[in-house]
Order: sequence, then structure tokens, then C-alpha cells
Amino acid sequence: MVKGIAHYEVGQQVDTHLLIKASTKGIASNGKAFLTLILQDQTGEIEAKLWDASQDDEVTYSSQTIVKVIGDIHHYRGRNQLKLRNIRPVQEDDNVKIADFLETAPVAKEDMHKKITQYIFEMKNSNIQRITRYLLKKYGTDFLEYPAATKNHHEFISGLAYHVVSMLDLAKAVSTLYPSLNKDLLYSGIILHDLGKVIELSGPIGTTYTVEGNLIGHISIIVNEIGKAAEHLEIEGEEVIVLQHLVLSHHGKAEWGSPKPPMIKEAEILHYIDNLDAKMNMLDRALEHVKPGEFSERIFPLDNRSFYKPAFLK
Amino acid sequence: MVKGIAHYEVGQQVDTHLLIKASTKGIASNGKAFLTLILQDQTGEIEAKLWDASQDDEVTYSSQTIVKVIGDIHHYRGRNQLKLRNIRPVQEDDNVKIADFLETAPVAKEDMHKKITQYIFEMKNSNIQRITRYLLKKYGTDFLEYPAATKNHHEFISGLAYHVVSMLDLAKAVSTLYPSLNKDLLYSGIILHDLGKVIELSGPIGTTYTVEGNLIGHISIIVNEIGKAAEHLEIEGEEVIVLQHLVLSHHGKAEWGSPKPPMIKEAEILHYIDNLDAKMNMLDRALEHVKPGEFSERIFPLDNRSFYKPAFLK
Amino acid sequence: MVKGIAHYEVGQQVDTHLLIKASTKGIASNGKAFLTLILQDQTGEIEAKLWDASQDDEVTYSSQTIVKVIGDIHHYRGRNQLKLRNIRPVQEDDNVKIADFLETAPVAKEDMHKKITQYIFEMKNSNIQRITRYLLKKYGTDFLEYPAATKNHHEFISGLAYHVVSMLDLAKAVSTLYPSLNKDLLYSGIILHDLGKVIELSGPIGTTYTVEGNLIGHISIIVNEIGKAAEHLEIEGEEVIVLQHLVLSHHGKAEWGSPKPPMIKEAEILHYIDNLDAKMNMLDRALEHVKPGEFSERIFPLDNRSFYKPAFLK
Amino acid sequence: MVKGIAHYEVGQQVDTHLLIKASTKGIASNGKAFLTLILQDQTGEIEAKLWDASQDDEVTYSSQTIVKVIGDIHHYRGRNQLKLRNIRPVQEDDNVKIADFLETAPVAKEDMHKKITQYIFEMKNSNIQRITRYLLKKYGTDFLEYPAATKNHHEFISGLAYHVVSMLDLAKAVSTLYPSLNKDLLYSGIILHDLGKVIELSGPIGTTYTVEGNLIGHISIIVNEIGKAAEHLEIEGEEVIVLQHLVLSHHGKAEWGSPKPPMIKEAEILHYIDNLDAKMNMLDRALEHVKPGEFSERIFPLDNRSFYKPAFLK
Amino acid sequence: MVKGIAHYEVGQQVDTHLLIKASTKGIASNGKAFLTLILQDQTGEIEAKLWDASQDDEVTYSSQTIVKVIGDIHHYRGRNQLKLRNIRPVQEDDNVKIADFLETAPVAKEDMHKKITQYIFEMKNSNIQRITRYLLKKYGTDFLEYPAATKNHHEFISGLAYHVVSMLDLAKAVSTLYPSLNKDLLYSGIILHDLGKVIELSGPIGTTYTVEGNLIGHISIIVNEIGKAAEHLEIEGEEVIVLQHLVLSHHGKAEWGSPKPPMIKEAEILHYIDNLDAKMNMLDRALEHVKPGEFSERIFPLDNRSFYKPAFLK
Amino acid sequence: MVKGIAHYEVGQQVDTHLLIKASTKGIASNGKAFLTLILQDQTGEIEAKLWDASQDDEVTYSSQTIVKVIGDIHHYRGRNQLKLRNIRPVQEDDNVKIADFLETAPVAKEDMHKKITQYIFEMKNSNIQRITRYLLKKYGTDFLEYPAATKNHHEFISGLAYHVVSMLDLAKAVSTLYPSLNKDLLYSGIILHDLGKVIELSGPIGTTYTVEGNLIGHISIIVNEIGKAAEHLEIEGEEVIVLQHLVLSHHGKAEWGSPKPPMIKEAEILHYIDNLDAKMNMLDRALEHVKPGEFSERIFPLDNRSFYKPAFLK
Repeated sequence: MVKGIAHYEVGQQVDTHLLIKASTKGIASNGKAFLTLILQDQTGEIEAKLWDASQDDEVTYSSQTIVKVIGDIHHYRGRNQLKLRNIRPVQEDDNVKIADFLETAPVAKEDMHKKITQYIFEMKNSNIQRITRYLLKKYGTDFLEYPAATKNHHEFISGLAYHVVSMLDLAKAVSTLYPSLNKDLLYSGIILHDLGKVIELSGPIGTTYTVEGNLIGHISIIVNEIGKAAEHLEIEGEEVIVLQHLVLSHHGKAEWGSPKPPMIKEAEILHYIDNLDAKMNMLDRALEHVKPGEFSERIFPLDNRSFYKPAFLK
Repeated sequence: MVKGIAHYEVGQQVDTHLLIKASTKGIASNGKAFLTLILQDQTGEIEAKLWDASQDDEVTYSSQTIVKVIGDIHHYRGRNQLKLRNIRPVQEDDNVKIADFLETAPVAKEDMHKKITQYIFEMKNSNIQRITRYLLKKYGTDFLEYPAATKNHHEFISGLAYHVVSMLDLAKAVSTLYPSLNKDLLYSGIILHDLGKVIELSGPIGTTYTVEGNLIGHISIIVNEIGKAAEHLEIEGEEVIVLQHLVLSHHGKAEWGSPKPPMIKEAEILHYIDNLDAKMNMLDRALEHVKPGEFSERIFPLDNRSFYKPAFLK
Repeated sequence: MVKGIAHYEVGQQVDTHLLIKASTKGIASNGKAFLTLILQDQTGEIEAKLWDASQDDEVTYSSQTIVKVIGDIHHYRGRNQLKLRNIRPVQEDDNVKIADFLETAPVAKEDMHKKITQYIFEMKNSNIQRITRYLLKKYGTDFLEYPAATKNHHEFISGLAYHVVSMLDLAKAVSTLYPSLNKDLLYSGIILHDLGKVIELSGPIGTTYTVEGNLIGHISIIVNEIGKAAEHLEIEGEEVIVLQHLVLSHHGKAEWGSPKPPMIKEAEILHYIDNLDAKMNMLDRALEHVKPGEFSERIFPLDNRSFYKPAFLK
Repeated sequence: MVKGIAHYEVGQQVDTHLLIKASTKGIASNGKAFLTLILQDQTGEIEAKLWDASQDDEVTYSSQTIVKVIGDIHHYRGRNQLKLRNIRPVQEDDNVKIADFLETAPVAKEDMHKKITQYIFEMKNSNIQRITRYLLKKYGTDFLEYPAATKNHHEFISGLAYHVVSMLDLAKAVSTLYPSLNKDLLYSGIILHDLGKVIELSGPIGTTYTVEGNLIGHISIIVNEIGKAAEHLEIEGEEVIVLQHLVLSHHGKAEWGSPKPPMIKEAEILHYIDNLDAKMNMLDRALEHVKPGEFSERIFPLDNRSFYKPAFLK
Repeated sequence: MVKGIAHYEVGQQVDTHLLIKASTKGIASNGKAFLTLILQDQTGEIEAKLWDASQDDEVTYSSQTIVKVIGDIHHYRGRNQLKLRNIRPVQEDDNVKIADFLETAPVAKEDMHKKITQYIFEMKNSNIQRITRYLLKKYGTDFLEYPAATKNHHEFISGLAYHVVSMLDLAKAVSTLYPSLNKDLLYSGIILHDLGKVIELSGPIGTTYTVEGNLIGHISIIVNEIGKAAEHLEIEGEEVIVLQHLVLSHHGKAEWGSPKPPMIKEAEILHYIDNLDAKMNMLDRALEHVKPGEFSERIFPLDNRSFYKPAFLK
Repeated sequence: MVKGIAHYEVGQQVDTHLLIKASTKGIASNGKAFLTLILQDQTGEIEAKLWDASQDDEVTYSSQTIVKVIGDIHHYRGRNQLKLRNIRPVQEDDNVKIADFLETAPVAKEDMHKKITQYIFEMKNSNIQRITRYLLKKYGTDFLEYPAATKNHHEFISGLAYHVVSMLDLAKAVSTLYPSLNKDLLYSGIILHDLGKVIELSGPIGTTYTVEGNLIGHISIIVNEIGKAAEHLEIEGEEVIVLQHLVLSHHGKAEWGSPKPPMIKEAEILHYIDNLDAKMNMLDRALEHVKPGEFSERIFPLDNRSFYKPAFLK
């Protein structure tokens, strides 16, 4: 198996296929154009400069293209950089495809789907169950492929479903320890809380915000969807308002984007479970390549903190 | 015409009908019960104590009852108080009704309805026009009677419609001076921005928050309604998202309850027009009884400031 | 079994023993002294006024005295109040003792001690294990009896140990779902994080802050104790600093009293587990007497929010 | 008529006169000097690099020089850049002057002066009228030429007067709709509110802050001027204090630079009118070149928001 | 010498003259009026209730009246209260005057005046010296009698001058240790920084804010006065702006009322010296009656902190 | 004597020895490596580029190496830059040593030690005196050599001791003017307040944070040390807690890193003295090279303000 780009050390030579994640043109001080390429595989990404780039190069080496590169790993401003000695576009017989280079959730889509379906199956309140099942069915295909965000946490293929499955398992453990919690509300709130992201975001690859995502946001989007689902299913109980509230308040505070703070016990706990899973994901990824006795890079969404891996944790 | 309760001076005698707005039982240090009555007419309200209240008195003098009172105006802790000498419930031949004691917008409902209809009529974009007309029709009856809030500004009968009409007139003047503004968006945004209050609030009298008002809030309520209206009218253009955004962002900032800040020019201006009209209303009411050369009471929603009426403004 | 004071409704008659939690003298407008008594049993507390109190009464009905009372439940300013018809001090043959009136953790001290000991027993890192065991032994007696706070959450006898045991169980579940977490660190951090409260607070009954508690605070107190324990046990590894950091940072942010924010993964998660357990405790207690379809009183440490119990949660 | 620099698209060729707004020397990685030129005309500005710049070039191509350039429009880091093919200083027979390249208010100075004079003429309170007229006369020449700021809004020649005139027209509309407002106060407050900028700023071209501007600020400067004017005109009424207050408080809050918040109704409304006109100006300029269906660049003084131009606004 | 009112203990009998600082009418639950009197002498103040007060009593026992009282010290809600047994207005032959009951600076006005004059005499920059001398002369009489505030610190007769003299002595010590400081600037800034309070406040007794104080504030008032003084003295150097800046910025930050933050070294240090002296004054007064081993009451302007007097400080 | 690097003007030629403070590799647009060198002597530092750097150069010109350079001073982006014409490593007979290039406190270590010892000698409370003396002895060697910080203020050799000595002198002056202050507490608090920095920081040269510094911080480190010292010296009085509190609270507020705010008078004053000395140091250094009539660079720890040196201060 080929070594991932994240595992090379300074001075090593690289001879592998990589995917161009981004390609930006610059003009050097000698007046000639160059390309700054962000190259990725499933383990991570690295920057490379393609000097004296022709107009053809700009087209050939654009985003979402697979390339074959040969070069050396340098250290530049605290990060590794790939100094290219050779680059060419993928050829038919190279036998690689884009999916080989994209990070994906560690659990298969089908398994996640099965698990979530089981959680819905266990619900006792039929109003909650029907709304949840209806919306999962309506948006299920995208839901199983979208990332949970464009960056920060679960920003990989199927990250959204993976985040939801982890939260469901955590919710199950928490509600076992605190039996006063209503499992139906908690499970449904978790399954729906970020579902609006399938409309807020553009898709699983090269993810950006849609106009609707920018102007309305995933919270209001899914609150609307719950309202329409209830109308369609002819459900009128307080469950509709309560589910809308759980989703509406899951960012916890107005200044974090929730027009109402949690005012129901399960809404408060949903906010905590969401936070805990998101932060575990950030921390695990940030500390993955950190050696015992060293600090990670600063993690912006964790208040820009740098985390230490104790030396005795071998 | 009878003098309003707000116009009495300390030492004057009162002999008039008033409406009990609130009645709260207390226990005096001699162990006997008393009632604290808030009595109102259209000009304002005053506190009175009914000492040695029997259990019958508690029932007779409860909230929303009209009474005939005789007493004197005292000064107590910076406010006027009515010292009761005589009180009795209204009698059939007193020829007064509750509406006589409630503050109401200074313009008739019918006139406001006509004016708003005219603004809708002038719209050129039929998607915006149809959604606005549909929702006004759906909630028009309540819209013309509800207050705009439980306190702070326009907290009187038909206050919601009165606030909207004032804003529309202001928007017309502003968009004449700044012709780059789109009138359709501005007018529709104004008509819809607080319409969710007919669900958020309990009604025109003794107004409180409903459960849906507390858990979802008028902003998300009306955003949902716009979505349902568009579905019902089979409108699919970007106008739907844009109108939802105008309403969604009209509180201006996340910490003021808008999950998204204004990101469209007309949304930003709508926020300003809303603010300006609300503050004019607060200021005019706070300064109404202040004499030139004196300061008003502190106005809580205006950062608890006290306002001065210059001595040369006779 | 006698009905608890929290379960009486307005209009019902009370004839029971209660403990005076606080007794404050006032002077009525007739110039005579009266006592405001806060009376409690294990279910809650209620206010009562003792009018025309003599100087003897002040002594007889002072704090921490058990009394026999007869009276009626009234409603006053949104809370129940006990209108006394008769009150006398406890008599020898009444056969009640103070402990009968104090709220206590729902798990026996011995069971909690056994559970915590087991968690320590399972630790694999002997430095962490020895420091934890040493400090638990040093302060164990008080630890098993103290509340976790003077108010807000776990403010009852053995509340501190109960909070720790709940957190340990939660930590076990969380670290099973997220196996990258180091259990030793998490368990030790939880056992020690609030242990300084046995010095910060005055004791299990009528709890107040000590001078050392006010000036130094439980966080710095226990950080010092860890340092001294390590010196005593001649442990010099990085475990000492790391344990100190876990305790030091468990309030999460400087403005919440942690001189350093969490900079180790287990410190971050400890902060979350602490928060989640404390809030579950507050929420369960606040919602205990709330009926479905109603809102709780405002809960100050939860940003003064009022929580709703959905009507369909029967 | 020549096409403005803001209207060129990538790939087009430029052959025109431009004004050097700023010229900064850099040293390229080959050790040779180069100049970064910001070139402007009335429609906007563009960056260009002059490579291998000699010491003579530094002098020839300094700030406030007109040049004749030939080159191509490139795209670089999200902005257009001019790649120079030829550059030479202006020649006598080129028949261009600096004023041709500077952005100016869309209304002539004389017309603005006339309009403001008319507003003063309509004032009824002679104290307010005399102070306003005196200060406008004292600083009128600069007032009609200065920008309203060095950046953010109305940062062009005569921008200060243009801002004031727009505000006066808006104030007239507002006070017609809310007749309780005192027009004299509002008009005078508007005319004076930013007049201190003629001392705070260095002048209409290449505008920077003066020492007095930095240390005292335009608010305190004009408050002092009002005091001196009153002394000179021997006016002693409360109007002096009230006018000073209007200017002093027009930033609205202490943290925005007003030592006192508005405490007079007209002061509060002046603050709103100032804000509304400033933001309309920012928004119109930011959206000028944005196409329907696209977002503007981020606007720093509008909380760094990016604004959307709806696709249906053709 | 008579014992001051602050030195009585609970249970002791009082028989002395006191000054009525404030007198407020209330209505008791028996319907009769009573007066709440705040009685003071130079050591402090105490509350007393005058029950069953007639309309004559309201006049006789109004603010700024000296009374002869007999009564007992009680404890009520954490504070001492005087239970009146007898009260009568002062009589001619009682031989007491208002000044006997007012707290005054511990240094004589003449001595303070002499000291400040000496500091001015030592100045070397004649522009600074002349402006300072001119303004001290213009407002000197009031300056020597006014308090420095209505509450919080130096809120006694001649408190303003006393605060300034303490700051001057501190400035002398500081500038000896840090010789880079310009003494002229520092001394003049200190003498002038709060001089506007002679216009902002109503006078030395029963001090309130004037209209000008409320609308303009002491900072802007004295900045204007410096400008007028310079004009009168025909001084045009940068000293004028710099002195204005020192005063303008002495609250340190915009949110604390300074439209500009300190931007000159001596301005920054002036802010610190002002703070240090004000806080020493608050702390000394708050701790005056606190016994070793006890905490003071909460001090609002010190972030509502309570201060501890160590037990070993006998 | 050789001219310091801070005193060269643009255009002047440099021929001197300098110490490499930092050396960072970059890759130029021609693909060749270059080094960015920060060169320093006791007066300041300057940047230089070493183009076309070989791998040998990287080793030869690494951090903490002395070099002989010849070059010219250029201006680049608002700062001076040294354009190298020649560079070579130091040679044995150059007769320079690292200490010649490092900034050091202006007072000799021995003199500072003597002065601090004298302050301890004057203490009257033997508990305070013994703890202070013990800790100074334990960490004295490092204390006299460490800087007070890695940047911002007193960031030079022996800066920590120099900061303490300046504060002691200031404390002496302050406690003379305010005799209610306890000198023992103030002096001991000052000597100990930053002593934890000898563990928090790595050493006097190329100073960074240690792991313990990052995770625990100098405040908690020294609080622990005081506890251990007291245990070692068998001191049990309240002095221990009080000294710990003084150190613990010297950052003033929770959000500035103090888990408790000052709650003892001397703690409050210690915080002020610390601030005043730190800011004087920053201001003096920032203004050192500023000419009268000009502004300094922005000073980040002083809220990013720029300070003005008045033109009349020649």
C-alpha cells in the first residue's frame, strides 16, 4: 500500500498520485505566472508550487484533477511543502479514481443508515417517529454523503451521518445514566439537528455554501422542513413545536446562531452532546500526528488553543 | 369629557370609572389581606391599595373588572398612587364598557387596512405581491387588533398594524430619497416582519406569550409561514428565500435574536426603519407628560436612559 | 409516612415538624418585631412569618431548631407561604432528629466510597493512582459528607461524592465510545476536581465559604494539595503537572475561574462531563414539581432560563 | 468619453491616463527594486507593479503624479491588476489635470451650499440659527470640499457636505412623519455634527488625521467651537448646551466615541439618520459593480458582512 | 467629645444631635403615613422610622434639618437602625450648626490651596502654567469646597481638592522614580482633570447633577474651558491640545467616558494615578469599621467586591 | 564606541558585528533557498535577507551565532532593513562575545540583590519575612537573570529582578503617602508575584514557555511554592493564605488570568503598582526613538495604541 502524503518527513522523496484540491495562479517577481497547488490524498494535504506555468498548465492542473508527481519534501514556514521535480496529469492506465483521494467516514454508509433506522424504529411517540422517518427518507441520499461542515469538524464525505451516528450512541449512553431524559426527543433531535446542511451546503466535494445556506442557514431551513412535514403528514400535536425548538436551539445561544436558547431539558442536553462529539472529532484529528511531549497546532474553533499530548502517553 | 387618570396632580380628588388591569393579594403586617390594584383608562394607569380585603373582595375586584372609585392622589416613591375612599363594581346603568378603558392605536383599523392594501397593490413583482397578500389575508383579522409587543413599544390595541403603517410611510419617504432601494422588498418585508406576533402573543388584551411564542418566536414562525405560503401558491423563485431572509434578519444581530444578520440592502434598511419607528414611539410616550426643563423616567429598552425635554421647547 | 412540605397545595392545612433553616428579625409598621422563618424538610422549604415576636422567641426560634407547626398554605407573590396558627419547639418525645430534615444524596456514602475505590483500583498508571488514592484517603471523610456547592447544584449532604460518582459513570460511558481517551487521567481528574471544596466550604450543614475558600478557592487549594502529595509520595513524573492542569482548567475559561483553559484532551472532556452532570442535576430538580404543559421557575445558573415540560410527556 | 478603470474586464487592454494615488518601493527576490503603484481615476483604482525600478523612477512615479499607461488587466488574488507594458509621466499637451481623476460628490458645491443655507433660513429659534450660521460661515470653504472620512463612507471630495445634505433631506421627511420632532434642533445638529472634521482631517486630497484630530477628535473639536461661537455671539440660553449635547452624543454610545449617549429625542434621531445615510452610501458603493445573483466583497464597517444582490433584481 | 453615630453598637442608647440627610414619606399598612429619615453626622449615617407622621411632621423633619434624637440601636437586614423614642427639631440654644454634621476633607482648604499653588509655581512651561493658574483662579472658590463625586469616592466637602492634592503628591513621587515623565504636564493634568465637576455638580451639600452635567459631563466641560482660557490668554502652542487631551482621556477608555484613550505618556500615567488614589480612598473608608478577620460590605465601584482585613493586622 | 544598530538611518553603511537572533529558510520564486536573518545588538534588531543560501549557510548562519556584516540600510514596509553586501561568521580574534549583544537591565545583579535583601530585612512580620527569604534563596540565581516576559515588557536579561526592584521603590513611595498600607505584605507580594516565571520560562536567552509554564502558569506555580515553603518552615498562620492570595490575584481579574480578584487592600494596590511599572517600561521603550511631534508604532499590549511625543518636549 502506498504511503499517505501526511506521513512523509522532510528530505524524503515523493513519487505518487495526488488530487489537486485547489489551484491558484500567482505572478512571480520575474513577471512569470506560477500555480500554487494544494494536493491531497485520504491522509491529508500538501502545498506545491508550479513555476513558470503556461496558460495550458492553468487548464491542465485545475482543481479536482488527479496528477502524478515526483518531488521532495521541504520545510517552509512551519509546514511541509512539496518541491516538484516532475508533474503530469493522470493517464488512463494509471488506474486511480477521485474517490481514492477523498477522506471518508470510517463507517460504511449502509451501516450508518441501518443504525439510524434502528434508532427511529425504537421510538414510541408516533408523531415524532413519523416526522423523523419522513424527513430522513426525503433527504436520506444526500444526508448519507454530505460532510457535516466545510471545515472545523467532520468535514469529510459522509461526515454528517457519521456525526449523527456518534451522537446517537452517546445519547443512548447518557439517557441510560439519566433516565429522566426522553429518548424519542433526543434521538429525533439528533437525527434532524443538522439535516438542513444538505440544503445549506453545495455537496460532498469542494463544499461551499449555497445562496439559501448563506441567507437562511441550516437551522431555519430544517425548522421549515419540520413544519412542512407535519402539514404533509397531518400531524398537529405539540411534538411539532417541540421538535422545531430542539433544532432551533441546538447552537445554545443567540450569539451562536440560535434564535432561542434551549428551553426544554432534551434541547439543553442535545446541545451538549453535539458539542462533545464535535470537539472529540476535532481533538482526535488535531492530535493524530502529534508526538507525546509535544503541542498540536492551534485549533481555531477551540478558541485557538494548542493541545498537549502528555509524554507518558506512549 | 372625563379627565384621564394620567392627568391628575397630587392632592386632587378622583371620582371616575377605571378598569382593573391587575389585582394582587398581599398580607399586611397586621395579618390581614389586602389587594394591590392597577387601575387604568386610555391615558395611563395608577396603583391603589384596598386594605382589609375579604375573600369576596378578591373575587369582586379581579383583573378585567370595571370599578367606580373615589379617592385622592398621593405621591409615593416617585409615582402617583390613588388612596381609595370608596370603590364599587360597575353597575349596569353606569353605561361604560371595557373598550373605553383600553389604549388603542390613533388610526382606525379600517383605514390602516386600506392603506396596507394599497401598498401591496403598488408592488410590481407578482411573487412578492402574492405571498404578502396571501399571508395578510390569512392572519389579517388578528393582525389588525394585536399589539406589537407586551411592553416597550406599540403595546396597545392595533399597535402591530399601527407600527407597520408608520414604517411603510417611512419606507416610502426613504426609498424616494434613495431610489436604489427596491420598494417591493421593503414594503413586503415591513408588512410581514412582525406578523408572527399574532401566533407568538395570546391576543390584544392581557397579552402574554404563547407556548409556541416562547419556544419558536415570531421570527421563525413567520419564516415558516412564508415557506408554506410559497408552497401553497406554487411559487419557487428566489423571492421566497429573500423574503424569508428579510424577516429572519430584521433584529439585526444574532445576539438580538436574528439567526442571520442582514445580507441584503433592503434587509439592512428594514432593520433601521423598524428601530427608528419603535424608538420614536417609545420616546413620544415617555416624554408625553414630561415638562420642559425636566427629565423623563428611565426607559429600559433605550439602554435605561432618561431623556431631557429642553426648557426652550415650550 | 408524612407528606413533605413541597407537596402541599394552597388551602391545605399543615400539621408537622419542620427544621428552621434561617430566622431573620424584622420590624413591622406597627413597630413590633416579627421573624421570617425558612422552614425545611427533605422535600423542600417554605417561608412563614411569626408576628409580634418577643425577645425570647428570637432565641427559641433560631436557625437549626426543629419546630412543630400548624398552619395553612397561602399563595404569596408566586410562591407558597405557610400562615402559622401554632408553633412550638420540638419536645424530647417528638422523636425527630435534624438529619430527618436535611436533603441527602440518594446513594449511601458507603456505596459511593466503594464505587470510587473501584475506579481507582482500575487505574494502570501508578503515579496517577497513588496521588488519587492518597488524597482521597487524606480528605475522604469530609469528601463523603460535603455538598458540591452552597447552591445551584448538588447542594445537599454528600452532594460532592454523588456528583463525582455520576461523573465517573458518565466518563466510563464516554471513554468506551471514544477509546482514544485516557481513562486514568479522566477518572483521577474527576475524583480530584472539586476535592478542594472540603477546605473551601465550612461543612455539610449551613454551608458557607471559609476565609481560605474566599481568598484562594477550591481550584488552587487542590492544585496545591496535588503538589504536596507528589512531594510526599516522591513522585516526579509529568503526571503531577498534568493532573494539576486537569483540575486547574476544569472551569474551562479564565472568566469562569480557570487560570488556564484546557490544553489536554482529557481536560477538555472533563470540563464537559462536569457541566453535563451539573446541569442534569439542576434541570431534574427544577422540573421535579413542574406539570406537563408548564414552565419551571427561572434557573439562575442556567442563564436565568425557564424550562418547559412538554404536554405530551405524561 | 474614456472608459473608467473600474469598468475593465480581465484580458482587456488599457491605454489611458491615471493618477498615482500611492507608490511604495519593494525589493524583489532578485535583489532589484520595484514599485507598487495604486492608480486611480474617478471610477475606482487598480494596482500595478513597476519592476526593476531605478532611483529616478522612484521620483518620477511618486504619489499625486498623473501617468499615461498601456497594459493588460489580469486577475490576481481575487482582484484585478494592471500588468504594465508601458508607462510615462504626463506631458503638457496631454491636457489632463488632477481634478479629472478624483472622485467628487454628485452634486455641485454651490448647490449644496444653497440648500444648506435654505435649511438654516427656515429655522425659527434665533439662538440655534445664529450659532449654526456663524460656524458654517467660519468653516464653510473647507466644509464644502472635505470628505466625510478617510475611508468607509463619503470618502470623496465634498463628501462631507454631500453627507450633510442627504441627512437634511432625510430629516425633513422624518420630521414630517413624526411632527413632535423639533426641526431647528435636528437641522442644526446635522449641519454641525461632523463639522469638526475640517480640523480633524488634513484636507480633501490624500486625507490623513491631523495631530489635533488624533488627540482630540472631531466631536470634542466642534463642541468647543460651539462654546466659543456662543461666547462670541453672546448667546447664553440652554440652546448652547443642547446643541453641544446633540453633537457630543451623535456616535450613540460611549464605546463608539460619544462621551454621553443621546439624552434628547432629537439627539437619538440624529444618530439614526446619520447611520442610515452612511450605510446607504456604503451599500450603494459596495453593490455598484456586483451582478444580480452574486455577493459583494466583505464590508468592514458593516461588521465585515458580504451583501447579496438578488438574482431577480435585474 | 460626643461619640459619632457610626460608633454605636446594637443595644446602645443614643441621645444626640443629628442632621436629616434625606426624608421620605411612606404609607404603612394601617393606612397612616410615616417618614424614613437618614440621619448623619461626620462619622456616618443611620436610618430611622418616624411612625404616624402628621403633615406638620413632614415639613418639620425635612432634609437639611438638625434634630435632637433619643433612641436605641437595633439591627435590621444587616445594618444598624435607630429606633426613635424621641425626636425634636434643633433649638436656638442647642448651639450646633450644619457644618458640624458634614464630613469634610482632613486637610484645611487654605493648606490645600497653598500646596496646589506651589505645584503651579514650580512649572517651567509658561503656557501650561498660565492656563492652569487662570482656570484655578476662575473656579478656585468652588473647587476648594466641592466633593469629587456624589458617591463612591471623595464624596465629602472639599473632597475634590483633597483628591487633587493626594494625586499631586503621588505624581511627585512617581515622576521622581520615572524621570522621563514631564512634571508640568502631569501636575497641570491632575489639577484640571476633574475641575469640570464644579459645573457638573450642584454644590457641596446635597450634591446632584446639573442639566449641563448630565448632558455634557465634566470632561467635555473642562476641555471647553481650556480652549476658552487659551483663547483669552492668547496661547496658541500645542500645549493647549495636549492639556485638552490629558483631561479628555483621563477615564482611560471610550466605554468609561473618554472619547479618546490616552495617547501621550503622561495621560496614561495620569489615568493610573487617578485610579490609584480613588481606590485607596474607597478601600480605606470601606475597611475603616471592619475588624481584623472579617470582610467589608460589597463595594459597588470596585466590581462589587468584598474586602478582607487579615486577622494578623491588629 | 561602536554605533548601535538601532541608530542607523536609511542610506547609511553598516560595518559591524551582530548576533543572529533568528534564522528562517525561505524559497524564492527562482526556486533557490534564502535565509531571513534577525540580527541584534544591545540597542535593537534589524532584518536582513541572505539570498541563494547553500545548505552550509543554513548551518553557519543559525540562531545565536555572531556574524560580521557589511551592508546598507534600506527602508522596507515602514521598517529599516539591512541589505547585505558581505557576511561572515565571527572569528576568534574578533574579540566579541554573546553577552555583548544582549540587552540587560540597567542595574547590576548584585545591586538589585542587595536592594531586595534590604527590603526583606525591614519586614516586621517574621512569617512573611521567612517565607519570602526562603523562596528568594531557593530561586535567587535564576530570579536575578531571567527576563520578566518573552515580550511586551522587561523582556531582557535580569528584567524580572529589575521589574521587582522598580516596583519595590514605587511601593515604598506609595505606602509613605498612604500609611494604612501594610508594607510587609506589599513588599513580599511584589518579590514573589512573578517568581514563578523562573519555572514558567525556559531561561534568560531565546526565552520560550516550558511545558509546566504552559499547563500551570507562573501564578499557580508560585502559589504552590508558597504552600510548600510554609510546610517546610512549619508556618501555619493566616499569612500563608494571604500571601498566596496576593500572588493569585495580581492579574486583577479572572479574564486576565487571576482565579480570584484582589480581596485584600494590599492585593489591589500590588496589581496597580505592577501595571504602572510595566506600562512605564513599555512606554519608555516605545518612545525612545520617537522624535518630538511624531507618533510611536502601535503598542500591542497597550490596546494597540500609538503614542504621541508632544512637539514642545525637546
